[in-house]
Amino acid sequence: MRKYIATAAAAVFLSACTPDENPKNVILMIGDGMGPAYTSGYRYFVNDNNRADFRPTVFTQTLVGNASTFPADPDSVTDSAASATAMAAGVKTLNGAVGVDADGQPVDSVLKHAKQAGMRTGLVATSEIYHATPAAFVAHNANRGEKHAIAQDFVNQRHNDMPLVDVFLGGGRKYFDHDETALWQKLEADGYHRVDDFGALENAAGKRNLVGLFADSGLPYAIDSDVPDRLQRMTRAALASLAGSDEGFFLMVEGSQIDWCGHNNDIACAMKEMGDFAASIEIVLEFMKANPDTLLVVTADHDTGGPSIGREGSYRWMPKVIRQVRASQGKLKEVLLESEDIAADWARFVDFPLEDDEIASLVSAQQYSRETKARDNDPKSLYASIADIINRRTGTGWTTHGHTGEDVQVFAAGKGSEQFRGNQDNTDIGKKLIALVRN
Amino acid sequence: MRKYIATAAAAVFLSACTPDENPKNVILMIGDGMGPAYTSGYRYFVNDNNRADFRPTVFTQTLVGNASTFPADPDSVTDSAASATAMAAGVKTLNGAVGVDADGQPVDSVLKHAKQAGMRTGLVATSEIYHATPAAFVAHNANRGEKHAIAQDFVNQRHNDMPLVDVFLGGGRKYFDHDETALWQKLEADGYHRVDDFGALENAAGKRNLVGLFADSGLPYAIDSDVPDRLQRMTRAALASLAGSDEGFFLMVEGSQIDWCGHNNDIACAMKEMGDFAASIEIVLEFMKANPDTLLVVTADHDTGGPSIGREGSYRWMPKVIRQVRASQGKLKEVLLESEDIAADWARFVDFPLEDDEIASLVSAQQYSRETKARDNDPKSLYASIADIINRRTGTGWTTHGHTGEDVQVFAAGKGSEQFRGNQDNTDIGKKLIALVRN
Repeated sequence: MRKYIATAAAAVFLSACTPDENPKNVILMIGDGMGPAYTSGYRYFVNDNNRADFRPTVFTQTLVGNASTFPADPDSVTDSAASATAMAAGVKTLNGAVGVDADGQPVDSVLKHAKQAGMRTGLVATSEIYHATPAAFVAHNANRGEKHAIAQDFVNQRHNDMPLVDVFLGGGRKYFDHDETALWQKLEADGYHRVDDFGALENAAGKRNLVGLFADSGLPYAIDSDVPDRLQRMTRAALASLAGSDEGFFLMVEGSQIDWCGHNNDIACAMKEMGDFAASIEIVLEFMKANPDTLLVVTADHDTGGPSIGREGSYRWMPKVIRQVRASQGKLKEVLLESEDIAADWARFVDFPLEDDEIASLVSAQQYSRETKARDNDPKSLYASIADIINRRTGTGWTTHGHTGEDVQVFAAGKGSEQFRGNQDNTDIGKKLIALVRN
Repeated sequence: MRKYIATAAAAVFLSACTPDENPKNVILMIGDGMGPAYTSGYRYFVNDNNRADFRPTVFTQTLVGNASTFPADPDSVTDSAASATAMAAGVKTLNGAVGVDADGQPVDSVLKHAKQAGMRTGLVATSEIYHATPAAFVAHNANRGEKHAIAQDFVNQRHNDMPLVDVFLGGGRKYFDHDETALWQKLEADGYHRVDDFGALENAAGKRNLVGLFADSGLPYAIDSDVPDRLQRMTRAALASLAGSDEGFFLMVEGSQIDWCGHNNDIACAMKEMGDFAASIEIVLEFMKANPDTLLVVTADHDTGGPSIGREGSYRWMPKVIRQVRASQGKLKEVLLESEDIAADWARFVDFPLEDDEIASLVSAQQYSRETKARDNDPKSLYASIADIINRRTGTGWTTHGHTGEDVQVFAAGKGSEQFRGNQDNTDIGKKLIALVRN
């Protein structure tokens, strides 16, 4: 009897701990800018910060480790291009570089390795699809700013006379509809189906080669959008297309605008982006129930903004106040800049009323911004005044409008997920993913 | 052959993954205030922020998960008392409360459970030994400020007519040598041996009941100390005393002053404290090589200061500049407040020379602080001017002089360490530790 139990345990052990083959499907999800404070904050955002009725999130359920993110530039904090290249190709490179090493030489991404191994491939982002993070999986350019050239790589980087990426969904119509290079026409000649709105996306699930471009540049912020679940919709559509055949697939999904809200020091915006990203992860976890032969890795490329839960000596953070803000700080600024009744216009978008001193500071900042056309990073601007009110009311601290260099968290589930436990470098993530898609 | 291999694998599996007995020794090490930025920062501090010659640290080697830290107070960021009570007793309580629940009722700590199970017990800290974190393992008081009463619990909380804590080492002579309550005399009557300096500590390894009190209140900062390795020395002495017999032991070691440097927004101070804490962890890991029947868990009670690697739009963090600072900002302030030649006195403690505008700001702040006796948190004070120079030069951001509420990291090694993987609440750490010391 004891021997029988031991042998049964061995079978469990061998299947759980030493998989003898790679997962059929590999999904990497990147929360751009999603440093550790974002996942803790998101849990409090959906729960309030107390024990009663405390529910887990997709992040608490799947945490396995951390990753360091520094670029090849000495003493530097990474940008999205260098970190995406690390995760895509397992190679450290310089800030600004996508899909090339520190000497400018092209490096092969996990997406290319997957395609070469006969797998299907997809990229999803709420930014332009040729923005730094998705770009690093298909393009090669020492300068992430060369967006038109990067967009061309979606056509020109090929395998077996077809583009490398079977399905790509996001923003960035601009360069695909550019007359001179006629990128969309080339993709159409390769047999791609295209949709430009989310209604059409629903009906495109059967398409094997699919392009969805839902805005000229990036998509609107979730908090300001008519389609706040746009990442969820794109994730579901990509899975429907890629899982429709037997080859297995590699898919990268980016929650691109967590980073943008972080750059703006806009906590309500960031929490809404976290919500769309988390719900997209739930869609993948649900897919994995029916497709257990799948690996999911979720991580970030870096932190953005250096946010903290609590600030300036106060030991309070107020999720319920964050939930009262129903517009991005940028949209609030646009509205209040033209406003003749600041308190009334504020109340159209924010459910906590302003104190008198807050109204006074907004009126003064409105006048300053009207007179000087101040930029948002001017501390006397209307934007800065709005941000200051919301950050003080919610208890949110920030140290920068740029990135910060703390290690990011790594989350994983499914087949092979135990390989991502503990501390690792972001290049290790790329190396492990490449090993898992190569036959 | 296949069956033989499977059975051998089962044996490995059963011993590695389902231990059938508890570890003999349990060691909990708490980096007070050691939020995620501290461990990332420490790795860059000892490595520079680039790939060449990149060495792991004790933190990268042992990371297993995260812990949430919120107290019972709604919407609040925790203090050390509530978080230590959570880790000691597995119970959420209010900020300020040590060893009591949110209703003020005493709760039993893992240290008390260990003592009741026949294990030996120890507490080590660089703060006063009756400071919030060590206090939560032995005392019961709704107010952490009642330090004299908490110190009395080191005598009055007893098991089998002996105090609960066999070995305690740290600061806090004041209340033990207080005439009225004669705490030290009572401990002496219980057979305790006492040392008051690190030389005597070296010779006390054989003592079964040992009190070491090395300062009236907290010990000096490592960066300012004649004994910068004081936590290492205390850790080594505690292990030598506790491991000298066969009962097994529970030991809590706190790197207390990581938090204090964080409150001061003093990055060089913090990195030196991290160094003493990391080296103390290495001492424990070395002990575990000869004593594999030991569990080590390392974590933090909360983040302090909201530090970030990079600040104000700059994508640079300069470990080599941090290493050029050889005094705490508090000590620099004391020296420069009296200085007649600020540049020369600065150069006695800091290896990067001041720019002219930095000297001018220090001269102006010196005059202001002399005239107003400004507090350190006054932005025009000499202290604030010194901190601003060092934080700008090193690229370090801070959001508060208080605590922040991001999840902290959890590190573990040895027998039972797999129980601490993934995300957990700080009360879960307490519950798991208690289960591991109970027979």
